[in-house]
Amino acid sequence: MSEEEYFEESRPNKSIIKVTERVPGGGLYTEEARQRRIDYLFERTGITLTEVARMGFSADQVRNNCESLVGSVEIPLGVAGPLIVNGQNARGLYYAPLATSEGALIASIARGAKVISMAGGVNAAFLGKRMIRAPLFEFKTMTEALLFTRIVKESFVELKSLAESSSRHAVLCSIEPQVSGRTVHVQFVYETGDAAGQNMTTTCTWNAVQWLQKKIAEKHDIHPTAYVIEANFSSDKKVTYQSYIQGRGSRVVADCLLPSSMVRRFLKVTSPQLARGYRHLASGALSAGMVGMNINVANAVAAIFTATGQDIASVHESSIGQLFVELNEDDSIYAALILPSLLIGTVGGGTGLPQQHECLQLMGCAGPGKSAAFAEVIAGFCLALELSTLSALAADEFANAHERLGRNRPRT
Amino acid sequence: MSEEEYFEESRPNKSIIKVTERVPGGGLYTEEARQRRIDYLFERTGITLTEVARMGFSADQVRNNCESLVGSVEIPLGVAGPLIVNGQNARGLYYAPLATSEGALIASIARGAKVISMAGGVNAAFLGKRMIRAPLFEFKTMTEALLFTRIVKESFVELKSLAESSSRHAVLCSIEPQVSGRTVHVQFVYETGDAAGQNMTTTCTWNAVQWLQKKIAEKHDIHPTAYVIEANFSSDKKVTYQSYIQGRGSRVVADCLLPSSMVRRFLKVTSPQLARGYRHLASGALSAGMVGMNINVANAVAAIFTATGQDIASVHESSIGQLFVELNEDDSIYAALILPSLLIGTVGGGTGLPQQHECLQLMGCAGPGKSAAFAEVIAGFCLALELSTLSALAADEFANAHERLGRNRPRT
Amino acid sequence: MSEEEYFEESRPNKSIIKVTERVPGGGLYTEEARQRRIDYLFERTGITLTEVARMGFSADQVRNNCESLVGSVEIPLGVAGPLIVNGQNARGLYYAPLATSEGALIASIARGAKVISMAGGVNAAFLGKRMIRAPLFEFKTMTEALLFTRIVKESFVELKSLAESSSRHAVLCSIEPQVSGRTVHVQFVYETGDAAGQNMTTTCTWNAVQWLQKKIAEKHDIHPTAYVIEANFSSDKKVTYQSYIQGRGSRVVADCLLPSSMVRRFLKVTSPQLARGYRHLASGALSAGMVGMNINVANAVAAIFTATGQDIASVHESSIGQLFVELNEDDSIYAALILPSLLIGTVGGGTGLPQQHECLQLMGCAGPGKSAAFAEVIAGFCLALELSTLSALAADEFANAHERLGRNRPRT
Amino acid sequence: MSEEEYFEESRPNKSIIKVTERVPGGGLYTEEARQRRIDYLFERTGITLTEVARMGFSADQVRNNCESLVGSVEIPLGVAGPLIVNGQNARGLYYAPLATSEGALIASIARGAKVISMAGGVNAAFLGKRMIRAPLFEFKTMTEALLFTRIVKESFVELKSLAESSSRHAVLCSIEPQVSGRTVHVQFVYETGDAAGQNMTTTCTWNAVQWLQKKIAEKHDIHPTAYVIEANFSSDKKVTYQSYIQGRGSRVVADCLLPSSMVRRFLKVTSPQLARGYRHLASGALSAGMVGMNINVANAVAAIFTATGQDIASVHESSIGQLFVELNEDDSIYAALILPSLLIGTVGGGTGLPQQHECLQLMGCAGPGKSAAFAEVIAGFCLALELSTLSALAADEFANAHERLGRNRPRT
Repeated sequence: MSEEEYFEESRPNKSIIKVTERVPGGGLYTEEARQRRIDYLFERTGITLTEVARMGFSADQVRNNCESLVGSVEIPLGVAGPLIVNGQNARGLYYAPLATSEGALIASIARGAKVISMAGGVNAAFLGKRMIRAPLFEFKTMTEALLFTRIVKESFVELKSLAESSSRHAVLCSIEPQVSGRTVHVQFVYETGDAAGQNMTTTCTWNAVQWLQKKIAEKHDIHPTAYVIEANFSSDKKVTYQSYIQGRGSRVVADCLLPSSMVRRFLKVTSPQLARGYRHLASGALSAGMVGMNINVANAVAAIFTATGQDIASVHESSIGQLFVELNEDDSIYAALILPSLLIGTVGGGTGLPQQHECLQLMGCAGPGKSAAFAEVIAGFCLALELSTLSALAADEFANAHERLGRNRPRT
Repeated sequence: MSEEEYFEESRPNKSIIKVTERVPGGGLYTEEARQRRIDYLFERTGITLTEVARMGFSADQVRNNCESLVGSVEIPLGVAGPLIVNGQNARGLYYAPLATSEGALIASIARGAKVISMAGGVNAAFLGKRMIRAPLFEFKTMTEALLFTRIVKESFVELKSLAESSSRHAVLCSIEPQVSGRTVHVQFVYETGDAAGQNMTTTCTWNAVQWLQKKIAEKHDIHPTAYVIEANFSSDKKVTYQSYIQGRGSRVVADCLLPSSMVRRFLKVTSPQLARGYRHLASGALSAGMVGMNINVANAVAAIFTATGQDIASVHESSIGQLFVELNEDDSIYAALILPSLLIGTVGGGTGLPQQHECLQLMGCAGPGKSAAFAEVIAGFCLALELSTLSALAADEFANAHERLGRNRPRT
Repeated sequence: MSEEEYFEESRPNKSIIKVTERVPGGGLYTEEARQRRIDYLFERTGITLTEVARMGFSADQVRNNCESLVGSVEIPLGVAGPLIVNGQNARGLYYAPLATSEGALIASIARGAKVISMAGGVNAAFLGKRMIRAPLFEFKTMTEALLFTRIVKESFVELKSLAESSSRHAVLCSIEPQVSGRTVHVQFVYETGDAAGQNMTTTCTWNAVQWLQKKIAEKHDIHPTAYVIEANFSSDKKVTYQSYIQGRGSRVVADCLLPSSMVRRFLKVTSPQLARGYRHLASGALSAGMVGMNINVANAVAAIFTATGQDIASVHESSIGQLFVELNEDDSIYAALILPSLLIGTVGGGTGLPQQHECLQLMGCAGPGKSAAFAEVIAGFCLALELSTLSALAADEFANAHERLGRNRPRT
Repeated sequence: MSEEEYFEESRPNKSIIKVTERVPGGGLYTEEARQRRIDYLFERTGITLTEVARMGFSADQVRNNCESLVGSVEIPLGVAGPLIVNGQNARGLYYAPLATSEGALIASIARGAKVISMAGGVNAAFLGKRMIRAPLFEFKTMTEALLFTRIVKESFVELKSLAESSSRHAVLCSIEPQVSGRTVHVQFVYETGDAAGQNMTTTCTWNAVQWLQKKIAEKHDIHPTAYVIEANFSSDKKVTYQSYIQGRGSRVVADCLLPSSMVRRFLKVTSPQLARGYRHLASGALSAGMVGMNINVANAVAAIFTATGQDIASVHESSIGQLFVELNEDDSIYAALILPSLLIGTVGGGTGLPQQHECLQLMGCAGPGKSAAFAEVIAGFCLALELSTLSALAADEFANAHERLGRNRPRT
């Protein structure tokens, strides 16, 4: 057996597998290629993939979403609402499509939406968008690095023009170089219309940077010893304090005011209990070294992202939040939620897939011109969930709710 | 129009909607209830939900996963592999089912898996599991709080026995009270077998705490002025430094060694370029205040979690990582990845859904006894992705790869 | 014995002490008041304070530095240098006055300074100054809060003029409001000349805010329900990621290049050992969740701050750093250090005390126009210390150095 | 002029300085060597050092505290108190010696101490001590690293015995290895009696590690490819989330209860104002990404550390805190402060210097057996300062207090 072969006794047919072999037809978006992959995997693993194979779209339909396609997984979809949203962009009654396999989640969001709506609705404001691509340049000396930052700042007009020429939607708002000795991270900060914009900003920045490199070589005779289009300083797909503090993607805030009678009637706690519960959870967050402070924003973000064709990986960085719950003198409850780094789009990515698009439509947020409203509605439903979970904790219903609704877990 | 009514000109039929109304049949898991919801939503929004409605499972089948069910969303599923895993628990060739709508992702993972396998495979070690539920108790004075922590520590045997009596799988490993003035957060730290275990530990802890409250009242005459079953100190569904440092869920590490010839051949860069690229990305992570340091672990985690029925919300806390890439004296590359807080299960939650279960089977990780291996395989594929992305950045292919494969975004 | 009296058997004379009593003459800056305090403390505690009482300045001389004066403590002062600094502001040979009681520290700084100077010196660049005062305003509704932020942005010219009218040195660079629901933190970002500027910016901001409150009341009829001049969003005297990322006080960077022969000769390690040592310490920093990455910047910062009359409390926030150490292809070592939040002044505070002023003079950094150079020199000596400590660790001399030089600790 | 010479026109006598020259007599602790340094520095810089030269101790007296001694700087010393402390270790009336050059600080601490004492005093509990030294070992493979961690765990008894044999005071409590691929950080966690213990734990660990290296070589034939006695994983002199969460040095908590009448009378605000002020400052801390939450703990920590001969560099890591302020139903105020990482000693380091020792005596905390009480008293005075500052902010006195008392800053 050669070095490149691999043998496992336990494999079906005790087959010899070449280490070099791959799932076949990786780059092909045809039904035939898909079937070949399924056959291959059966041969190698003995698993038939009957279930995932019965997918609802054609192999070609998802050519831009998925290589080495074999089928799909379905995520159960429920709906919560209506939630009254009094946003700067979203105004009216909204329903949230929620794709999840976690029992109790949708019921909890629905409860929160109900009490907020009864109380007049959630206010929400989209505060701005900030997509970043941050190439790094290394030089021989810090002197060159410092000269380079000056050139970059002086070249804003040209860089903006070049960056924006690669896209109909990207607007370059600012360029912020940061010197780290002989290297320089340069943040290109964009607004990206209604797309999440990660890829768009890569292309735009790449083009601008080609010109920049030529300019510094020709006019200033400085030559980077190394360059990467992105050296983690954009925080793409990561949780960083930079994103938390300065924002990344969409920044949105939502708040609401709940009369004490409604808190009691719908959330089954008194207002002081709710405020004290918040105080306790804020204490836990502080002690745990939490990035931000929230209770379970990730649950709502993940369910909406999955339903609406967002990049599910962005659940990681998008689920950071700041929750505030305060007891007013009249015993009403004031609650606010800030989501500083919501990576969302209403066009592009998975938003064009048929079901996902339908979910965006159900939310009134499909297509161009809708991403600010989309951010506000998400923030509203996240706040609804936070208040519902907080009240369940404050009333000690939490264990019971999970017992009753989440019965799918293994008998423990 | 009463206060509880809501009218929107723009709604279909300009209908008057009661604020109090909800999506109908919230608690029912029948086809009929599902249809009623779809009809209701059409009436309210004019959206037909034709696409999401054609789901592949029955309404009853997902009764523990999803309230107010209306259908499903399908996520495209591709496969990468084989990846040779030389783990403490996972040994052999592995294929990763990856559910995603982001072009280029699976191709990148496949490339990384290939070079690692050619070089002998990825080593991996499951380092332990740590599920936490952390009730908070508030007392009248710090003196009482300090007495309480002493009682808690002395009652470990009884608390362990009670906590474990509510579950066949949970093992209570330690109880760690933390005094914050007159309040005390008590961490109940569990191993939870092959389930992720968030709900299991709630139940176990809740039972133990009932006994504890009785004991301190009867024997010590101390009475908490407040209590919550969880005050954020378990870090459930949040990114915290506590989880990052002490671990939460499964802690796993993977590493590999790549000869320089293979780096050049498969990753299209030299080893020094790769090491320098890592250095640059580590610098960006440091400057951005990243929690941990990785490049795009979230992409692989999200795709595998979605494919295998994990709680997608857990992508938030599970995508933290520590990546190390080092240049050896012989120009080979050493790479290691630590995932400190992987919230996973091979039973319970969404793992029983038909397609998701099939995906776990394809991975060789379905059912009891498999979660440690599952953690190791995930870490292996995450490392594969990290190395592939890093090499693309170091070679400045990044913009091009996205251009070529991710063509679904709006014409920018 | 009344409620306000307090009796301790163990006190000298078993005196009854009134809880309400205070150290006498709190507000008086006379020798007589000082003596009264010393007498009082002797009466109450039996401690004579002979040593602290023999201070070198008059009671009146420190009236702006210290209430309830009883004397002074002397901190031993050593000197390291010369260090060649090739800064944007500091150019030449520099000596560092270092006040410390920790053996081995000055010797280590001196060693680092020597190797750097032999190699041509340290480059340094003051990158800018950013002093912040951040009042908070609370409103009845988020709508008012959003309106308020618009007004603040539109009022920049007036606010700038008013803020700057209270100071000859403060320049208001920007105003950055941040909405958190119905509250708004407003960052007033200043340059403050050669003073650290914490107090100066309080006064300036306070004046501007008086006008602002009047304006929004009269013109817009909005009335904050609460206001504080500072709600922790300036990060004053705290370690925050905001200061780390955006900077606070002076931001400065230093770097140097060490030929491998000098590394070997003066630092007693090889260049690869030094680079590997750095890699290991960076790994530890990453795993520990360090804010930034450095080895012992606090040692140099504290010693220089104490010597030169800086606010010693600012050692807390000023000792954050980013250290980079890299092995070049020719086996030379490149090292850089960024100090993002150095709170320093060359005028004001304790810089006018006679010895402290002399120390600033020794450093060539006393008085107006010197704070940028001061920042560069500090960064240079910090880098010297970092390289020396790193090499001691990499060579495993660390335990020995402390044994030899730090003999004052209790026989262990 | 040779390469090793350096000429500056502006130097006194336009002297040529050799780059290789150092401040003379670096290792000598004699008056004569000190005088030589002063002469040398005058020759090189033209500065006489008249002020710093008149120091109160002999050159020999500080031989373990300071190399290259030239004199001293005096820090003005005031006193605040009495503060009633009802601690687990400190009980009675305490006065705090405070060395500072920042006006208004001592007055503020005194005010806080007064209201707390009037209200019955501050409760305080020393919660434990945790000094860490964390050597790193690198191996050829992760397999070896995993084997090594098992050996370390199994060798606890021997390692404990060896580590403790180098010190009369150090107690090794636990050894916690952490695998990072092929490297392992091993935390040696100690109690160190009444010394801060940084150096003591270095020596103890160094000895244990020599044995360990021999053992793994001889018995297991594994040989680290690299080793450092400390790779930043002890967090020594750094702010890390590890220290914040798990503790480093002494962990201490203090709390108090203030009747609303006393809040009004002494702090000049109402209880609800104070609680609201706290809420606002907690919001700022959250938004700024603060490590912990406090207002100005660093001020009190720095003043006490400087007065009592602590390592002033430790102000950096010791000034982290968690402050809680709550409004009770009867309008009284509950306040608590946790200091998780207080690096203090009552023996060793600078605590033996004459004035510093006197300050410890004044505090009733000099010498062996006093460090737990010392921690409690520090926490008490820190809480006093926090409450005073908070009330000044809540009452908008802050700018005025600084105007009135801190008059030493440059005319702004």
